[in-house]
Amino acid sequence: MLILMDLVRTIIVETSDSQVIVLKERDGERHLPILIGMNEALAIDRRLKGLRTPRPMTHDLLANVVEGLGCELEQIVISDLREHTFYATLVIRQDGRLIEVDSRPSDAIALGVANSTQIFVESHVLDEAAGSE
Amino acid sequence: MLILMDLVRTIIVETSDSQVIVLKERDGERHLPILIGMNEALAIDRRLKGLRTPRPMTHDLLANVVEGLGCELEQIVISDLREHTFYATLVIRQDGRLIEVDSRPSDAIALGVANSTQIFVESHVLDEAAGSE
Repeated sequence: MLILMDLVRTIIVETSDSQVIVLKERDGERHLPILIGMNEALAIDRRLKGLRTPRPMTHDLLANVVEGLGCELEQIVISDLREHTFYATLVIRQDGRLIEVDSRPSDAIALGVANSTQIFVESHVLDEAAGSE
Repeated sequence: MLILMDLVRTIIVETSDSQVIVLKERDGERHLPILIGMNEALAIDRRLKGLRTPRPMTHDLLANVVEGLGCELEQIVISDLREHTFYATLVIRQDGRLIEVDSRPSDAIALGVANSTQIFVESHVLDEAAGSE
């Protein structure tokens, strides 16, 4: 079962290699913290705020490629947790078909956050990794 | 006119913000140095060497999206130089059509280098920015 989540926090600590994003289930209280890299955290923060750069950054390029090919990011699914690593899937609509592409959650969210793409988590992942706040 | 180039060097200096890649014209002696960011330099170096990571990095994801959508990166064109900034275009083949997507040269080369995608430079850019070694 897929559970709809919202990105509620991006914590960026300049001195740390690992940054943290926190997802919260929309119809519940469970939170899912995910460790991500600095570049992806900065991309999420920037694209969430709609800040423009003079030239497209890498996730902007990814978004422009998807759009340029006439496709749309339909949803993001955080599908698994194996050996402390979260797995995600981009679900891209192409001519009425849905194409799935394996992704790190951080890249998926950096891509989707600019368009408020829905983020889902498989319930077994949330059962295993969620905390409350 | 488009001039075919080869990536002949990636210079990564850990202590510097700006890294350098050097393109050389295949049928000539002119070199084109381009300043790029650390992340893109590391991506170019890694994908050029075919090094695998446990999970797809951002440029791997970009490559997987292009391939997953049934498309192919046909060529890269470094098309302009304005105010000390190089502009590039991804030329992507989709169902026999060619789609152009605006890109930084670094992202374009990081994407294309794993498949030895041809890199072209507009001759006026090379005339303006090239050096010899």
